[in-house]
Amino acid sequence: MVTLDSEYLALLCRIVGTENVLTDPAQLACYAYDATGVKSRPAAVVRPTTTDQTAAVLRSANERRIPVYPRGTGTGMSGGSIPSQGGIALDMSRMNRIIRIDKANAVAEVEPGVVLGDFQRAVEAEGLFYPPDPASADFCTMGGNIAECAGGLRCVKYGVTRDYVLALEVVLPSGEVINTGRQTHKCVTGYDLTRLFVGSEGTLGVVTRIVVKLIPLPKQIGTIAAIFGTDGEAIVAALEIAGAAPLPRAVEFMDSQCVEAVIKHRATAGSPRSRRSSGKKKGDESTHWRTLVSHHPTPRPGVAPAPQPPAGPCDELLRAAQSGSRTCAFVLVEYDGGRVDVEEAVADAKALLENRGARLARTADDAAAREDLWDIRRAIAPSLYACCAHKIGEDICVPRTALQTVLVQLRGIEAECEIPVAVFGHVGDGNLHVNMLLDATARADTARVDRATRRVLETSILNGGTLSGEHGIGLAKAACIPLEVRPRELEIMRSIKSVFDPNGIMNPGKVFPG
Amino acid sequence: MVTLDSEYLALLCRIVGTENVLTDPAQLACYAYDATGVKSRPAAVVRPTTTDQTAAVLRSANERRIPVYPRGTGTGMSGGSIPSQGGIALDMSRMNRIIRIDKANAVAEVEPGVVLGDFQRAVEAEGLFYPPDPASADFCTMGGNIAECAGGLRCVKYGVTRDYVLALEVVLPSGEVINTGRQTHKCVTGYDLTRLFVGSEGTLGVVTRIVVKLIPLPKQIGTIAAIFGTDGEAIVAALEIAGAAPLPRAVEFMDSQCVEAVIKHRATAGSPRSRRSSGKKKGDESTHWRTLVSHHPTPRPGVAPAPQPPAGPCDELLRAAQSGSRTCAFVLVEYDGGRVDVEEAVADAKALLENRGARLARTADDAAAREDLWDIRRAIAPSLYACCAHKIGEDICVPRTALQTVLVQLRGIEAECEIPVAVFGHVGDGNLHVNMLLDATARADTARVDRATRRVLETSILNGGTLSGEHGIGLAKAACIPLEVRPRELEIMRSIKSVFDPNGIMNPGKVFPG
Repeated sequence: MVTLDSEYLALLCRIVGTENVLTDPAQLACYAYDATGVKSRPAAVVRPTTTDQTAAVLRSANERRIPVYPRGTGTGMSGGSIPSQGGIALDMSRMNRIIRIDKANAVAEVEPGVVLGDFQRAVEAEGLFYPPDPASADFCTMGGNIAECAGGLRCVKYGVTRDYVLALEVVLPSGEVINTGRQTHKCVTGYDLTRLFVGSEGTLGVVTRIVVKLIPLPKQIGTIAAIFGTDGEAIVAALEIAGAAPLPRAVEFMDSQCVEAVIKHRATAGSPRSRRSSGKKKGDESTHWRTLVSHHPTPRPGVAPAPQPPAGPCDELLRAAQSGSRTCAFVLVEYDGGRVDVEEAVADAKALLENRGARLARTADDAAAREDLWDIRRAIAPSLYACCAHKIGEDICVPRTALQTVLVQLRGIEAECEIPVAVFGHVGDGNLHVNMLLDATARADTARVDRATRRVLETSILNGGTLSGEHGIGLAKAACIPLEVRPRELEIMRSIKSVFDPNGIMNPGKVFPG
Repeated sequence: MVTLDSEYLALLCRIVGTENVLTDPAQLACYAYDATGVKSRPAAVVRPTTTDQTAAVLRSANERRIPVYPRGTGTGMSGGSIPSQGGIALDMSRMNRIIRIDKANAVAEVEPGVVLGDFQRAVEAEGLFYPPDPASADFCTMGGNIAECAGGLRCVKYGVTRDYVLALEVVLPSGEVINTGRQTHKCVTGYDLTRLFVGSEGTLGVVTRIVVKLIPLPKQIGTIAAIFGTDGEAIVAALEIAGAAPLPRAVEFMDSQCVEAVIKHRATAGSPRSRRSSGKKKGDESTHWRTLVSHHPTPRPGVAPAPQPPAGPCDELLRAAQSGSRTCAFVLVEYDGGRVDVEEAVADAKALLENRGARLARTADDAAAREDLWDIRRAIAPSLYACCAHKIGEDICVPRTALQTVLVQLRGIEAECEIPVAVFGHVGDGNLHVNMLLDATARADTARVDRATRRVLETSILNGGTLSGEHGIGLAKAACIPLEVRPRELEIMRSIKSVFDPNGIMNPGKVFPG
């Protein structure tokens, strides 16, 4: 683990101010992990507030060959921000200004520490729309979204982060500040350095300024969810919807294990609907719920379930899920656009879901009902955390026609490795979040967990898929990248890294196998 | 100019077959130019039909340090495919198979020589949609689209080529074949080499296989066009439409010089409508007209105008343009989506155009009327060619709010350099095609033309714009790239080029200043 001597720490204090250099072990512990649960403490946390400070930190670290681990709020799902070799955790979350939202030009400029949800709300207040929407939107930062090329719930219609980034300011390890792209909606001047940085997982430089494209906010949203008797039926219906015009903006799937976990969790923790009705401001509750989703692995003991309000579509669907011989799969579809066509699309989708065997399909008639339907989807992560000692989440993406085969093969891995596997995801894109639910015994048996993990990734590759649809390779999958990327292509990527980072100080240990 | 000795020509014949190595001067002349009019003959044309042949050609050229100029059908607007140092013109147009259109997975796989228009029609026959649509769609190849990151008429809603490319097979100068990306809709494994190749203008390697994402074909299209008294009024109205939901798929503008040229040209050459009504198959005529648009600089002498059919919306608009004190600017807007919302959007846009001072606004009620409205837009290029000895087309893109200022500044350049400047373009994206119309005197006065060209490019940069929205830098703007890209960023681009092409054989003389 790389440590820092007191002389260098003093220099860092001069660059960013003493209050922005953290070395207290309790503070360092907060910067040791992300959503993977892997932990490794940095020698120091440095929190720049300007591009110049960022440049001075990088230059000094580069001269000393000290590893630098840039990070936002640490919500990553692949260990991308974990300071795996110690050194400096470069916390960019204090550079969090929305510099401008330029409605006339449909662009916005932000610093990397801006929280995505704050940005989404700010642009929506102007009648504009920034579609990328990872589930961690209320916590994750725009800089982290660039680093991992974040996706989320609306990719099937709107694409991913890379499709919205127009220009970047980037500090290289040398301390040089470069600009990529232009603030125009189109630009083909020179190589596309912008998109080389998007998804590079902090291994090439540190983004200090981001210009994104915006689009007009759609007028109407229409949401529908359904319960199916089997995973297979649910997938078939979801893909039929994803393959036809109008393109939905979300096509989500949860397998029966996820549905069961959500039902169980709601029985103990109560529904967000019941919490929302308990008197606090809705905005707070919504934030609270998203916090719970992302960061509270288990329900807090001693919190009694709140009294239940009248059943919403969410409750009806979950009751339908329990009505058959076993609990069942869930599909959620959302459209946006003009009023009449969205209404028509929702009605058509409802008919299709029912014709394809849905046990129950429910549409949302207003924003509250829509939130209620999404609550099922959002409850997956905390519900799964609540029913296991530890959870490993993979993020494979396969051709849509392979989804059913992959689901069957995942059941085989589950049986063979004796690790429950719960699957949900953005099936409109073929993107599955595969969650291995470990009890204490399984968690201790790392060989078995590693075998299961590798089998999941191999299953994706053998079905024409990828190791990661949207979480990145990071630390978690670096050793497995040769499953997907051949030696010559990896060598090219390493050579490109050397162009930007010849001393290898940027986020070492990530993306590339050791 | 790099020549090839007979021994090497014999080797090339062994690789691709004698019939696929062209050295006859008349044949070489056909490979000397693109749409810029700049000419430089290759020493030989080599036409591979497989990836293996392409690899063997590149490997042999690399060993001998012979420049290789990959090309499709030579429709480029920036000299990207011109064999400026002789050597090999690598004609990829014979690798033109559509390998698969996979409706269930919404992807297609093609060879680089597939003509875009053929591909568009093939996917549309399956109910799918590939949005990138440069004006040369009926001639340009998919490989060329990748090389230049082609844009076109539908970018304002659907983005550009880079937003649809999922995976590539690329032959490097060494003869190695690499694969980038995955055939899935999402993939964030490793660096984004795919998008590094998109827009790299053939300077890094030769694309031999392309996988693109498709979307469902929109059900309805609605088109509206209007004539305004001034360029400024037209721009204001167009931008108001581009800035509101629903997002139109096209927002096109033509200034008064373009409108005048189209009116004059129709008077001599006849309208495509009159030609369409003269008995030939519509499909042929449509192709013929697009041919005329792209490749016939002047109307052929001795062809009498055909008798005119009843006036369509196009004629009405052009008559309205002539009704005032001088001819006027033209705006075309197109929506797609569900039936009701498209109809509503068109009605709203018509009202807005009329409220903002349109002299006349006309909607298209059927496909024929839509084609008729587009005829005005498509007629620009041949009409401008017909009214000058030579035309230089720039392709700047600026923030939308700068469009009016830029138009005024272009009028200043026009006056100062005494070169008529006709402007049209995709104003929804801020993308202007700036056409300098040269008479014989101006054409001979290269210093004046160069000064005007540079002033146009500087105008874009000074207004926060770019040298190229969609045509690329190629040969035409290589010397000007430092206006936009700073030395360190150019150095990084050169270093990246060296990773792929250490001997500099790929399309030398392009993108980078000499």
